[in-house]
Amino acid sequence: MDLTDFAEFSEITAPDAGAADAARARQDILTKPQGALGRLEDLSVWVAACQGVCPPRQFTRARVVVFAGDHGVAKAGVSAFPPEVTAQMVANIDSGGAAINVLAGIGGATVRVADIAVDCDEPLSEQIGAHKVRRGSGNIAVEDAMTEAETIAAVEAGRRIADEEVDAGADLLIAGDMGIGNTTPTAVLIAAVTNHEPVELVGRGTGVDDAGWARKTGAVRDALYRSRAAGSDPIALLRICGSPDLAAMAGFCAQAALRRTPVLLDGVVVTAAALVADRLAPGARQWWRAGHRSTEPAHSIALADLGLDPIVDLGMRLGEGSGAAVALPILRAAVATLAAMATFGEAEVSDRSDAEQLALRPQ
Amino acid sequence: MDLTDFAEFSEITAPDAGAADAARARQDILTKPQGALGRLEDLSVWVAACQGVCPPRQFTRARVVVFAGDHGVAKAGVSAFPPEVTAQMVANIDSGGAAINVLAGIGGATVRVADIAVDCDEPLSEQIGAHKVRRGSGNIAVEDAMTEAETIAAVEAGRRIADEEVDAGADLLIAGDMGIGNTTPTAVLIAAVTNHEPVELVGRGTGVDDAGWARKTGAVRDALYRSRAAGSDPIALLRICGSPDLAAMAGFCAQAALRRTPVLLDGVVVTAAALVADRLAPGARQWWRAGHRSTEPAHSIALADLGLDPIVDLGMRLGEGSGAAVALPILRAAVATLAAMATFGEAEVSDRSDAEQLALRPQ
Repeated sequence: MDLTDFAEFSEITAPDAGAADAARARQDILTKPQGALGRLEDLSVWVAACQGVCPPRQFTRARVVVFAGDHGVAKAGVSAFPPEVTAQMVANIDSGGAAINVLAGIGGATVRVADIAVDCDEPLSEQIGAHKVRRGSGNIAVEDAMTEAETIAAVEAGRRIADEEVDAGADLLIAGDMGIGNTTPTAVLIAAVTNHEPVELVGRGTGVDDAGWARKTGAVRDALYRSRAAGSDPIALLRICGSPDLAAMAGFCAQAALRRTPVLLDGVVVTAAALVADRLAPGARQWWRAGHRSTEPAHSIALADLGLDPIVDLGMRLGEGSGAAVALPILRAAVATLAAMATFGEAEVSDRSDAEQLALRPQ
Repeated sequence: MDLTDFAEFSEITAPDAGAADAARARQDILTKPQGALGRLEDLSVWVAACQGVCPPRQFTRARVVVFAGDHGVAKAGVSAFPPEVTAQMVANIDSGGAAINVLAGIGGATVRVADIAVDCDEPLSEQIGAHKVRRGSGNIAVEDAMTEAETIAAVEAGRRIADEEVDAGADLLIAGDMGIGNTTPTAVLIAAVTNHEPVELVGRGTGVDDAGWARKTGAVRDALYRSRAAGSDPIALLRICGSPDLAAMAGFCAQAALRRTPVLLDGVVVTAAALVADRLAPGARQWWRAGHRSTEPAHSIALADLGLDPIVDLGMRLGEGSGAAVALPILRAAVATLAAMATFGEAEVSDRSDAEQLALRPQ
């Protein structure tokens, strides 16, 4: 890899510590016991820091981008669904019938789907295919997912999409995934980065049976063996055992950090991409929070590595950005506390210090 | 207690099993792997059953009622805040500055506050004081919270409020609490109903210090000793060691079940009232789901007794209905999946059975 391609990624800066301090101080004078909002307080502080202002503004353009791609390894029977479902689901997302459309609607976010590597004759539309890299990926159990040039193009595609969205006013980004077979490269990437064994982290994906799980674990083991050639080079890792769509998600998450835009991570696939992105752009993780914990075992391993504690844990395992979309209203709730609650002074409510004096009084 | 007062409570019926079956069947043909929405699927089935229709309708009038009251035991220094805060916070809720106003807004719910037993000269307004029972409660460490007539009046107040809300079109109810000292009777009720020791379930409430915690635990022990006279009579229990506001919440939760209206429970105070309500109106719990898990140890004990698994666990401990309000968008998300997602047939997406045939094909 020619690191000069991504030289900017060494320049990730931290969210604003001053705004974080101001947010913490404001939480302490809102009309509630200190700390009583639990994680909402931490999340509100993080959003204030990302925006560099306290109180933070409510999100006005939360945006989900679903990265779609096919995976050569799916032909090895690692999934419960046939590969043509990827293209069918791109159409379903485009027409608003998928889970992510419905859940993003509840969260007040809009949805865009990008065909990065769907194995179809023509992208569904010019806009959807604008950043397409190739049709499908190589079968990572036996060959590289793509070439080095394609890998760099895929990361750049994700970066361009993040730029397009931030330039259009997005103030919160969510990456989603759609691709039959995509939890196989996901498991390989997480195993390679965190040094875990395949059996510890291979899950059922969309619901593969025992024989399918055994095929999947075998494919992960073979691809993990091949991944050793990457050493600690994240681009080589994506090339050997990732996929164009995962590489694009990594570029997207890293670029969002570079653009100082907060990201709510979704499930295991996006988190695997984020894990690689944090290697590519050290410190990018400061701009991310985990929306949910999926049932895929690899997800918890990746979250622990990133030091992220998910907002909700609802036994979901759907992808598409769905878990992050479900968590989005909680992030909005966190913002709203700082932005809209009254302080003790404003509401003329006695604060705790009065009570401490009361407690000292003889009863 | 004259049980004829609450004879209707023996007539709680179950949510509609036919609608639940239809909802389960519909989840299985939506464009996603079966089970991939995790708890959202269970919640969607529950709402369909409560409404008796599949797909269920999105909530159009979700309503939070905050039950306010003062507690004689607060004079014993069991809280980090002085008792006058109850009345001040009623005013803050009425003017829209409290956490519950802000969080209900995010969840798409409206808020009503009811002065059941605030220790103030005049209720804040005629509407807020319309169901007032008395000023404050007795100090339960040494005396009954109220008389039997007041207890029945308080339960009836909660029932009337539920009736008013359901008659006005509420399709989801949330009870909230506001009352300095109210986690003390809460702990006593939960200890009495579930047979736990005070030290296992007394928490910090709004944030009492070590000395305050010791005073609180002593008060809980004394009240729990006094509660033995109640035997298994829930009305006697509320009279001896509850409070008018907790009794009203119990009446509210039970009446909602009688009116076949779903309830999202909030934190430890509301759940204590629900625990008593389920004894008063057996089977009422089928109409309730737990919004969140608070940090108060007694909350988890009460939830386990009711067999309820909270939707979110965010380290909150505020009351006012705030935890339920934060969980409300997730319940909305669950409803939306059944109401708005495309089926495999509608979206022309291949379902799992195709994939199973694929897996049988030699690769």
